[in-house]
Amino acid sequence: MKRIAILGSTGSIGTQTLEVVENNQDIQVTALAAGSNIRLLEEQIRKFHPTLACVWDEKKAAELRTNIADLSVKVVSGMDGLLEVAVQPEAEILVTAIVGMIGIRPTIAAMKAGKDIALANKETLVTAGHIIMPLAKEVGVKILPVDSEHSAIFQSLNGEDKKAIDKILLTASGGPFRGWTKEQLAGVRPEDALKHPNWTMGRKITIDSSTMVNKGLEVMEARWLFGVEMDQVQVVVQPQSVIHSMVQFADGAVIAQLGTPDMKLPIQYALYYPERRFLPGERLDFAKLGSITFENPDMEVFRGLKLAYKAGKRGGSLPTVYNAANECAVGKFLNREISYLTIIDMIEGAMEHHRVVENPDVDAILAAERETYEYIESRW
Amino acid sequence: MKRIAILGSTGSIGTQTLEVVENNQDIQVTALAAGSNIRLLEEQIRKFHPTLACVWDEKKAAELRTNIADLSVKVVSGMDGLLEVAVQPEAEILVTAIVGMIGIRPTIAAMKAGKDIALANKETLVTAGHIIMPLAKEVGVKILPVDSEHSAIFQSLNGEDKKAIDKILLTASGGPFRGWTKEQLAGVRPEDALKHPNWTMGRKITIDSSTMVNKGLEVMEARWLFGVEMDQVQVVVQPQSVIHSMVQFADGAVIAQLGTPDMKLPIQYALYYPERRFLPGERLDFAKLGSITFENPDMEVFRGLKLAYKAGKRGGSLPTVYNAANECAVGKFLNREISYLTIIDMIEGAMEHHRVVENPDVDAILAAERETYEYIESRW
Repeated sequence: MKRIAILGSTGSIGTQTLEVVENNQDIQVTALAAGSNIRLLEEQIRKFHPTLACVWDEKKAAELRTNIADLSVKVVSGMDGLLEVAVQPEAEILVTAIVGMIGIRPTIAAMKAGKDIALANKETLVTAGHIIMPLAKEVGVKILPVDSEHSAIFQSLNGEDKKAIDKILLTASGGPFRGWTKEQLAGVRPEDALKHPNWTMGRKITIDSSTMVNKGLEVMEARWLFGVEMDQVQVVVQPQSVIHSMVQFADGAVIAQLGTPDMKLPIQYALYYPERRFLPGERLDFAKLGSITFENPDMEVFRGLKLAYKAGKRGGSLPTVYNAANECAVGKFLNREISYLTIIDMIEGAMEHHRVVENPDVDAILAAERETYEYIESRW
Repeated sequence: MKRIAILGSTGSIGTQTLEVVENNQDIQVTALAAGSNIRLLEEQIRKFHPTLACVWDEKKAAELRTNIADLSVKVVSGMDGLLEVAVQPEAEILVTAIVGMIGIRPTIAAMKAGKDIALANKETLVTAGHIIMPLAKEVGVKILPVDSEHSAIFQSLNGEDKKAIDKILLTASGGPFRGWTKEQLAGVRPEDALKHPNWTMGRKITIDSSTMVNKGLEVMEARWLFGVEMDQVQVVVQPQSVIHSMVQFADGAVIAQLGTPDMKLPIQYALYYPERRFLPGERLDFAKLGSITFENPDMEVFRGLKLAYKAGKRGGSLPTVYNAANECAVGKFLNREISYLTIIDMIEGAMEHHRVVENPDVDAILAAERETYEYIESRW
């Protein structure tokens, strides 16, 4: 019996993780943490019987306590609550499907408690990869990627020696504005950017996908996850999203993972790695598909990707600034406070303004995030 | 130091194997066997310093003995010579790059002598897969595929559990006559069929590639090599020959191996498996490539493929008949004795005429081959 705890159980990855749990008999949910959606969380608790639940908002937590008074489930809240879920002795794997920097401390706590991490929180490696990866090695836990691209790379590396990696070919759909000019992008409204051609995702990540900032964050994650240099991660635009990513090895061989766009596959792979289990769902039909096309990303139009390489190569606290500035800017864009192209200007401005802290600890990372927020609020 | 012996050192795979040897410092050639090209064999002997050489033709062997009298190399000949090369104590790996049924006995002898087999001889598994695969398990040796497609499948399976295979997607270029009608094929001359769009190969295999009989033989090989049913091997036409083959797993994930068309890659992979080493040569450039296309094979026009499934499913001595009839027919076609479409008619006729021997031993396999030759000679 596999036992898992989930941070962010009511989000997109969280709910799909629970679908995977439903499809398998030998997996048990020991703890769930959510932000504020206590109605869905209650449903999940009644269905999956964890012994511990966390709601970020204490008021909502109190409400949930009342609503599930008939169950013997402990309900906690806030960062202390998240940490309690993270280190809960029953779980072997912590699924970090929570969004934002809030995921870092619980992830570190869980690792120190000996738990493998099924990682779906982008910020963890982007901002703290230099802390997380050495720690994983030190305490002997696995970092299992849940993101579709990183899972594809992870699957392509299965059985291979990482030292033989020549480069990682991280695929990108190119988003809804692939092929557009800067002039065309200038007029993009939130409702335009929220349409992703292939994947159904949350609002923030859909915008990030349209600007290719999401791909930039993924490049930084890949760099840490697979122990390569930024320049060894090459973005290849593959609009059909059939090839989920590839690895080129020293002998010139390229191993790729392909599939339909179903997040349950990487989730299940992370939970049962290295075992592959039957997963219901559509299969690829190559003749029906007809063709897979490729192009290079346009880093002049999609400058967010170029800035990610800059942030990742410089390192230190700069990736945190890149991420925080983007988060802030996307929020403003979705609130119709700024134009689409200003998202990238804000990232660039914040990066230029920032004095890089080398090898930042978690406090320094969080400080860099806060300063970035403040700078953007004061400057725009 | 790795030590290898090569059967068929003067052929296409043999010479490329020696190029791989040249590129690596820690590999040594202990024995070489060739058919009749003693000039090239002598060059190879002087360059790679094996202690044993075999020439199929005894007269040519005698000539070689004279020519290399200055060296202390033992020169043997005929089937006894091949067997001596196969079991030579110095070698750890036998590369079977010899063409035809002649490869079966030496392969079995080498396996019994504890050697891993780098398999480039198609007939071995097509006709004797039911003998070879159980024997490999029994004596604990590896069968390492050298063929581009089977190596791709082998690479895609690296680190995976074979029990999780859903199906094997064996790619095919479709050959020079992809999309043609039967009426168009009727007029094909040897010079038309000898042009392969992507790979440079020997004459017989180029014809086999144009009829898709080669793909049929590969399906049968894959079935034995990877322990699946014939129906689990699906041929996918991929005209650019960039995806060398794929495996679909129980969870729906597809792992593929891609690369430029360079046989040195699968050769080197087989020799150093599971290690990957640097291999000089061109790398794939996806943006330059632009697209990869897919279609289903037309089994009504390319009936040779359909007949392969029939032969493989029926099993016993029928795959031997399929292969022998094709060999015979292609020889006649190249000699301009028969038309292009008659190749397939001959295979079909020989299969229909044959009374299948169940679970044939090597003698029965060779008898089925001989009978097929005789039948075709008498009938056409």
